[in-house]
Amino acid sequence: MEESKGVVKHVLLARFKDGVPPDQIDQLIKGYANLVSLIEPMKAFNWGMDVSIENLHQGFTHVFESTFESTEGVAEYISHPAHVEFADLFLSNLDKVLVVDYKPTTVPI
Amino acid sequence: MEESKGVVKHVLLARFKDGVPPDQIDQLIKGYANLVSLIEPMKAFNWGMDVSIENLHQGFTHVFESTFESTEGVAEYISHPAHVEFADLFLSNLDKVLVVDYKPTTVPI
Repeated sequence: MEESKGVVKHVLLARFKDGVPPDQIDQLIKGYANLVSLIEPMKAFNWGMDVSIENLHQGFTHVFESTFESTEGVAEYISHPAHVEFADLFLSNLDKVLVVDYKPTTVPI
Repeated sequence: MEESKGVVKHVLLARFKDGVPPDQIDQLIKGYANLVSLIEPMKAFNWGMDVSIENLHQGFTHVFESTFESTEGVAEYISHPAHVEFADLFLSNLDKVLVVDYKPTTVPI
């Protein structure tokens, strides 16, 4: 589909369960980042702690953003065995999760 | 504060109220984009509809991402009169909203 082309940003918001130790969180983040080297359509990954001050973050504490070349690339990623295995581990450590995908568009002014 | 330096991504997830017409949504998105020209620390803006297929989007339909040079820049934006005026209008059209800010960090592998 022509409309599926173009960069897709995959944004995951997370809150880890109470009691997951910081070094385990670090390992999970490294495991997430490592998917870039295992899953071809995943082109980039970055993350950060929530530092917002508006109190509209609804309890989420971590943001993970990965980049794909198309919506098909995201679908391939989701069903990839390396992602499925990682997601099982990752999600078992989370209290809350939210995922959105979007194609970044600028607005002509 | 030294630690406040570095690009900050400001991500807003939204769901518009039922009944807000598409042309009004377009105008609101243009109004959001226009803040880049009105508020100095806001450096970039893009947006997109949610196209995720994992059903973890919790009802959010739109993603708005803006970029700032520091957390102080975000604070200046939030209190800027142009933002306050726009936010009143924008939020009155929303059913759901969530905001996170983060400093994108890559993970050395």
